[in-house]
Amino acid sequence: MIEEIRKVDEKIREKLSSWAKEILERAQRDKDLYLRVPVRTLSNVIWDEEKGILRMGEKVAHRSFLNLAHSKRFLQTVIVASAIKELLEEGITTSLRDVFYRVKFTIPGTRENVVDDQRESDKVIEDLETMLGFVREEFHVFSKGGKGHVAGPIEIEEYVYSPDGKHRVVEVDGTNVGMGGWAVPPIVEPERVKIKRVEAEFVLVIEKNAVWVRFHEDRFWDDHNAIIVTAEGQPDRATRRFIHRLHYEYNLPVYVLTDADPWGWYIYSVYKQGSINLSYLSPQLATPASKFLGMTISDYYDFNFPRTVQIKLTDQDLKRLREMRRYPWFKKKEWHAEFDLMEKKGFKMELEAATRKHWRFISKEYVPAKLEAGKVLP
Amino acid sequence: MIEEIRKVDEKIREKLSSWAKEILERAQRDKDLYLRVPVRTLSNVIWDEEKGILRMGEKVAHRSFLNLAHSKRFLQTVIVASAIKELLEEGITTSLRDVFYRVKFTIPGTRENVVDDQRESDKVIEDLETMLGFVREEFHVFSKGGKGHVAGPIEIEEYVYSPDGKHRVVEVDGTNVGMGGWAVPPIVEPERVKIKRVEAEFVLVIEKNAVWVRFHEDRFWDDHNAIIVTAEGQPDRATRRFIHRLHYEYNLPVYVLTDADPWGWYIYSVYKQGSINLSYLSPQLATPASKFLGMTISDYYDFNFPRTVQIKLTDQDLKRLREMRRYPWFKKKEWHAEFDLMEKKGFKMELEAATRKHWRFISKEYVPAKLEAGKVLP
Repeated sequence: MIEEIRKVDEKIREKLSSWAKEILERAQRDKDLYLRVPVRTLSNVIWDEEKGILRMGEKVAHRSFLNLAHSKRFLQTVIVASAIKELLEEGITTSLRDVFYRVKFTIPGTRENVVDDQRESDKVIEDLETMLGFVREEFHVFSKGGKGHVAGPIEIEEYVYSPDGKHRVVEVDGTNVGMGGWAVPPIVEPERVKIKRVEAEFVLVIEKNAVWVRFHEDRFWDDHNAIIVTAEGQPDRATRRFIHRLHYEYNLPVYVLTDADPWGWYIYSVYKQGSINLSYLSPQLATPASKFLGMTISDYYDFNFPRTVQIKLTDQDLKRLREMRRYPWFKKKEWHAEFDLMEKKGFKMELEAATRKHWRFISKEYVPAKLEAGKVLP
Repeated sequence: MIEEIRKVDEKIREKLSSWAKEILERAQRDKDLYLRVPVRTLSNVIWDEEKGILRMGEKVAHRSFLNLAHSKRFLQTVIVASAIKELLEEGITTSLRDVFYRVKFTIPGTRENVVDDQRESDKVIEDLETMLGFVREEFHVFSKGGKGHVAGPIEIEEYVYSPDGKHRVVEVDGTNVGMGGWAVPPIVEPERVKIKRVEAEFVLVIEKNAVWVRFHEDRFWDDHNAIIVTAEGQPDRATRRFIHRLHYEYNLPVYVLTDADPWGWYIYSVYKQGSINLSYLSPQLATPASKFLGMTISDYYDFNFPRTVQIKLTDQDLKRLREMRRYPWFKKKEWHAEFDLMEKKGFKMELEAATRKHWRFISKEYVPAKLEAGKVLP
């Protein structure tokens, strides 16, 4: 796979240098030196009903070098681009925080730093992603590692790149992993992570790590021929991308299991439609065919949960619920019925509530029953 | 290893039932039914200078069933103990949150719940740990999974227990793991995780996951014959326990690498001496022989870091620094010199600051130079 990584690197380097050349030429020729950057603010986030994703609209900002309000961002863009060129040339994979420090130097002849806050370099990297049409993982840049865990009937070949040339291929058999599962690496682009073989019939995404351990210990993946994934709460890009790939490369249905509260339901929507902040990446990260498997307040009644598992809604929960009612991607009658029921009954419920019935109720009865009945929300 | 797990389970079951019998007998015989529980509040935390750990003192509380202030805790203890008995009998591993829900029922004939807040069941589990002399991992109870990551010349056999009898042994070769490394499982007790073979000469513990990725990609473990570990910030019990075992079973020196700020330095002390909250577990979790490898404000000068990496100390940082000055385990002249220097210079510094010099400065120059010079703090 080293050839594939090099091919992607090469493509980016070409794009970067033609982009840089163009800037140089324009600098010599024109008075008005500018960048055209797709707008990523809320005003340019579009709910694409047909595709079922949040995506970036067509608005483009004109960032002029001679405009005092833009010139620093212009400079930052060129400097970060050159840092990325270094990364590609030296074959180094690194974090957003590292990139920030790499470019945090004082502009010669001034007392001004290129960047003072990581948000500045992060924004510029997002600019470069949208301008050049790559994801920053292809630039060798990740945010944090270590959120995703996977188990089940899947074989993976992970290509571990080495700046010193000692590349390795690691074979992973998802049915032969420890209790921690396969740790999803910080970058899961196809040139680094090959999904070699999938025997599973579907993917079950579980909001909480500790609940995922229950399904893993109970060999849910074996009994139900499924791949089980968790990313503890708000998912990272790598885990979302990995699930996206499982769906698009192997046509696997994706089911999501979260707490019955507005925050859990929103996490579902991030897996499904993408997030507002990263709407420009939905085509790479979202899996609009995902279905919501639970929990809901209806489940409380359908499965006869005891009263003690109820948790009273807070003002914050109610506020979030009102916000979610307005999101166009939640404007489906099934969801609004659940919003109504939660508001009317005034309580929420956690995945672990299932343990009130029995230690293994969630993995052995609740989820299997819902799957069999096809009791999902869109 | 199933036999070993069963042996531990058996020991706990015996202890639990003799403890329960004793309570029953006393209930029939005496008027004063009570539990003797070692005190775990700050007043009973002792800095044991000789052993170099924070440990629990000798104070014991008398919890009487007939004392209204104690009777609920007494009842909770018995009910949680019976939940643990269930776990052991059914061979189930689970989380603190699950145990909380398992015992969250209404006491028959009353309108009172056994527990209303997870802190109550957590406290009771701690009572049981100290009363019975086991760690809750031996009760099959963990907090959260998924924090620790490991790579390097180490072979591990992980015994994956199955409640349905389909036990598995997973062989892990730490030099052949992906970019996420070996995910430390939620429980690393010797009956579940066997450290089979260690070729390494030392352990390097890295505070931040993203920095650990740098060392992993650079094959630091290969160049320096080391095991590299991270647990992202405040370490979980499993990762601390694993490092403890590496030191005590293989006599490996342990070096800790954190940010140069009071929080990073405190994290070092948690690995080394234990934490105030879990002082009763220091004999199982702490590694008092650990050494601090960096960063420090002295390093800023010794390695000629540029000014732009300085981060101004906040009031919170200064407050924390003053608290740390008073901790007896930090009462060492080397540490007080560093506290003085930080306060005088007024800045802190992050591990990623090394990237200002070069992408691989931290793994290729900074840490190797410090190791070679033996530039560590006690």
